[in-house]
Amino acid sequence: MGLILVRYVGEIGIKGHNRHLFVKRLRRNMRDALKKNGLSGNVWSEGQRILVEVDDTAVEPAIHALQRVFGIASISPVYRVPADVAAMGAVARQIAARLALQPPMTFRIQTRRADKSFPLTSPEINRQVGSAVYEATHAPVDLSDHADVTIGIEVREGYALVFGERIPGEGGMPLGTQGRVFVLLSGGIDSPVAAWLMMRRGCGIIPIHWAQNEVEREKALKNCEQLGRWSFGWEIKPIILDHNELMAPIVEQLREIGEERWTCVLCKRAMLLRAAELAPRYSVEAIVMGDSLGQVASQTLNNMAASSAGIDLPILRPLIAYDKVEIMALARRIGTFETSIQTASTCAYVPAHPLTNADRGRMQEILQRIGYANHP
Amino acid sequence: MGLILVRYVGEIGIKGHNRHLFVKRLRRNMRDALKKNGLSGNVWSEGQRILVEVDDTAVEPAIHALQRVFGIASISPVYRVPADVAAMGAVARQIAARLALQPPMTFRIQTRRADKSFPLTSPEINRQVGSAVYEATHAPVDLSDHADVTIGIEVREGYALVFGERIPGEGGMPLGTQGRVFVLLSGGIDSPVAAWLMMRRGCGIIPIHWAQNEVEREKALKNCEQLGRWSFGWEIKPIILDHNELMAPIVEQLREIGEERWTCVLCKRAMLLRAAELAPRYSVEAIVMGDSLGQVASQTLNNMAASSAGIDLPILRPLIAYDKVEIMALARRIGTFETSIQTASTCAYVPAHPLTNADRGRMQEILQRIGYANHP
Repeated sequence: MGLILVRYVGEIGIKGHNRHLFVKRLRRNMRDALKKNGLSGNVWSEGQRILVEVDDTAVEPAIHALQRVFGIASISPVYRVPADVAAMGAVARQIAARLALQPPMTFRIQTRRADKSFPLTSPEINRQVGSAVYEATHAPVDLSDHADVTIGIEVREGYALVFGERIPGEGGMPLGTQGRVFVLLSGGIDSPVAAWLMMRRGCGIIPIHWAQNEVEREKALKNCEQLGRWSFGWEIKPIILDHNELMAPIVEQLREIGEERWTCVLCKRAMLLRAAELAPRYSVEAIVMGDSLGQVASQTLNNMAASSAGIDLPILRPLIAYDKVEIMALARRIGTFETSIQTASTCAYVPAHPLTNADRGRMQEILQRIGYANHP
Repeated sequence: MGLILVRYVGEIGIKGHNRHLFVKRLRRNMRDALKKNGLSGNVWSEGQRILVEVDDTAVEPAIHALQRVFGIASISPVYRVPADVAAMGAVARQIAARLALQPPMTFRIQTRRADKSFPLTSPEINRQVGSAVYEATHAPVDLSDHADVTIGIEVREGYALVFGERIPGEGGMPLGTQGRVFVLLSGGIDSPVAAWLMMRRGCGIIPIHWAQNEVEREKALKNCEQLGRWSFGWEIKPIILDHNELMAPIVEQLREIGEERWTCVLCKRAMLLRAAELAPRYSVEAIVMGDSLGQVASQTLNNMAASSAGIDLPILRPLIAYDKVEIMALARRIGTFETSIQTASTCAYVPAHPLTNADRGRMQEILQRIGYANHP
């Protein structure tokens, strides 16, 4: 059987009495990640580490899956040996061989003693295991962070864990520990990235897509699938609502009074109002949007203020200060870019000249004229 | 005189008829950056580029200053020569020498013809200038992105610009093009980073600090100074308000009814309400906070919902989905980390067990009991 060592992020470590709940949730999400990737294995805590045991052939695919579990700082394939320096040296030599350690490559040994009763100190273990590796490889020792290979040893009661790689985890918080949120999900690039950022920070997401046509609906659903590859311990079940039903009457009324330029502001507003209405039924505590300030002419502070006025739920805009290039780079990494850039079926309601500087007082007037007077 | 070529970010390029305003603002901010760093020089547009002319000795400090101007994609020290291939070749050899180009280092020439009437095509220019550089250096040509040195040529009417380095700019949008915002600025790590992110995205910031003691006040003011090193075309003038005056009565009332655990939620709420009141006077369109979901036990969605309920201005939380390690790395780069981590004088009002799961209905009850019934 193959063993994998998982370190969780420092932020989980400082959660005081909530910590065990965070770690429990993390283990559950890790189990779900294994299962959804067709792997079976055991997951348990030892001290401040989580260990995963899988078939030897499943170590690489398991690590690959765990890299998409939020809350993990780093991952190491690891060997468990008796708490005995000769045994540690032997497995360290094996690791060195597997990593093709040879001059002019350099190496170092780093020991952490969880079991303080072990007869040798950490520097003594480093020296003895280092000698064993040096004899086998003749690679020079470099005690700095620049060493090409760092072999880590954790000495515990009765055994030691030895590893040669540290594969970065995705960071963030265990999904499901930070409540649940709606995400207004279009078929475009930004909203799936906003969704992913909130997932990484620990939120279970419920996407809401306002379907206007089949093309964008399919893109949104495909992106939900891609986001599902990162969502462990939580099933993403999108809510599909009818955009035409929402907007057709408002747009007609705006046309009648010659104020089509208000369409986009009032559309966002209508979506937010409806989402806020649905929130209690889904135990949702915030609404997430893909807004990035100034990315298009209508994403101004004034327009945001108008469309969200009176919405009685926090509106979270994790991309508010991101540049487009940063958002695109993230979308590529998440796996939603390909779908999002497919030919867009543009919105049927966008007016020729959308407002860029909505005044909230003026909006109330417009709402009154089209018969939405007592809207918040 | 030394010449510097500045490329602005693509997002400015797609602003349609607003583009000239963005570029004008960018030039103004660049001039301010030179001035505030004790440099004098000329700044003007040529096609889709901005050129800066300064004393030869001022080229390096000017580039250093321009790296802190938002909206710039990249910067190159550049030579202007007549539109003549021999002249381009001669200056390309100079640049190669300055960059110590020699085998086994590789190079390539990349030409962009803004003047399509020039008799040679771009590939022909690349070839002829490349030969000149090869003869002088014997460095091999590599046409891929992996070339060690890329010498760029922009051919314009009557002259050419030749450069060998591309120094990355900070990206973002020209400061002042995206409205102005209040930032609730404490003495801690997060809020200055939130402020900087909104500045980078084009907002002029007005920090509000609620002073409770001299230590935190000084830290906040020092961080304003550091942020000022990035704020060109906009003076940062912090507003200092009295935190004790704001909170002492509320805390006393909460104590009387045995509900101190509500202190932090109602404190944030009081600060937001006061900021929203002040907003029109300062033409401010949003309030920026340093909230990062789950970073401390009280930064929950429920607490955010309670403290911001009824605030009639967008609340922007650019750090909402950031990990602490990312925030700290940014703080270091911005220059606010050192000050922020200095011994904190902790808040005098923090209760033993702050609420982590504020219910808004319950909050209304509490507000009623302490006599703030008709608060939004």
